[in-house]
Amino acid sequence: MKKVNVLKPVLVSNKERAAQNKKFFAGLGALVINIIASPGAGKTSVIERIVQYFERKNILVIEGDIRGQTDSERLRKTHADVVQINTLTECHLDAFMIAQVFPEITRKYDLVLVENVGNLVCPAEFEIGEDFKLAILSTPEGDDKPIKYPLLFHLAQVVVVNKSDLLPYVDFDIQKARENISRENRRARMFTVSAKTGEGFDTLCAFLLKKVDEKKKNKD
Amino acid sequence: MKKVNVLKPVLVSNKERAAQNKKFFAGLGALVINIIASPGAGKTSVIERIVQYFERKNILVIEGDIRGQTDSERLRKTHADVVQINTLTECHLDAFMIAQVFPEITRKYDLVLVENVGNLVCPAEFEIGEDFKLAILSTPEGDDKPIKYPLLFHLAQVVVVNKSDLLPYVDFDIQKARENISRENRRARMFTVSAKTGEGFDTLCAFLLKKVDEKKKNKD
Repeated sequence: MKKVNVLKPVLVSNKERAAQNKKFFAGLGALVINIIASPGAGKTSVIERIVQYFERKNILVIEGDIRGQTDSERLRKTHADVVQINTLTECHLDAFMIAQVFPEITRKYDLVLVENVGNLVCPAEFEIGEDFKLAILSTPEGDDKPIKYPLLFHLAQVVVVNKSDLLPYVDFDIQKARENISRENRRARMFTVSAKTGEGFDTLCAFLLKKVDEKKKNKD
Repeated sequence: MKKVNVLKPVLVSNKERAAQNKKFFAGLGALVINIIASPGAGKTSVIERIVQYFERKNILVIEGDIRGQTDSERLRKTHADVVQINTLTECHLDAFMIAQVFPEITRKYDLVLVENVGNLVCPAEFEIGEDFKLAILSTPEGDDKPIKYPLLFHLAQVVVVNKSDLLPYVDFDIQKARENISRENRRARMFTVSAKTGEGFDTLCAFLLKKVDEKKKNKD
């Protein structure tokens, strides 16, 4: 299989670039979160809620989309700075694409939120210099997804179950989801939210604030 | 970008293998549909409904999953034959993986349904020898997905909007979805269904039956 022989070096050199990105972000003192989910799981809506909670923090959102900038336009209405990356045909963000936005970063940030391309598979393979991966799983997708798409749920430190408002109408068992996530990664933290109603964001954001503060402290 | 230089030959050789697969399937007289959608859009449930409708037809389902065989186990309860492909780390099915199941095909089929890996991006890039691609878009994902994931919606002859039962609870405008699909592919046929309630499957399956009959006729 030619493809396997080639992907390995690509992943290795990506890893090196990701380590350099990590140093760059550490220089800013910013906590960097790589947000990964299926198309339509609510990545942008979750980011809007987080940005709203952190109204006094300096936030940069890096938006990854194959094409277009509708999500960026939504987020530009918030107090966050937004940079758009269009991957054109690529199904994920990689560390090199992230490095391309560094010249745009002319101030310090407390929090950098990276919205990856909507895809539960490929984005998990590419480190971008993040502090951790945050997976979003929406209730209509089903509680079995951590089992079927194991790599992301193996790597994600935080799993946000979104669209709790739809729980009465879909087959999704929160306890089962928790077990399935735990099977892939015992230490993952799970939070249940609804970006539509705002439910659950106080708990999630209090956790994220602790992480932002820890990061800042380690820098000082 | 090393990766691009390498992916091109991979896609070319895949295309050649796909052409060979197409001949193999033509020999069976079977209509082959490559079913592509996000994780949790309801691929397996839609297939169950189609199989149920075609109770007098010989059906083969080729199940593509990164890991596990829960979908195959569900489908083995129907009258269809089922073959499972586990892609392990790969985010899509390709023509070579499909060719690997040919030794298992020891009878004729009217219809071959291929359930691709849950992913709105990569599976669209790889032909597998199908007659056409059928994209499933579920209502909780949003009506903007054809714009954001253009390749699949550019290529898919048929788009099935699933989970119509959730329309009262989600922001999804059927007319808007139709316009967005049409922007990518004017000739695509759109069908609205609910795999949960069965709504819309008579219309969809009548269309598919016509395609099955046409294929059979072309073979004779």
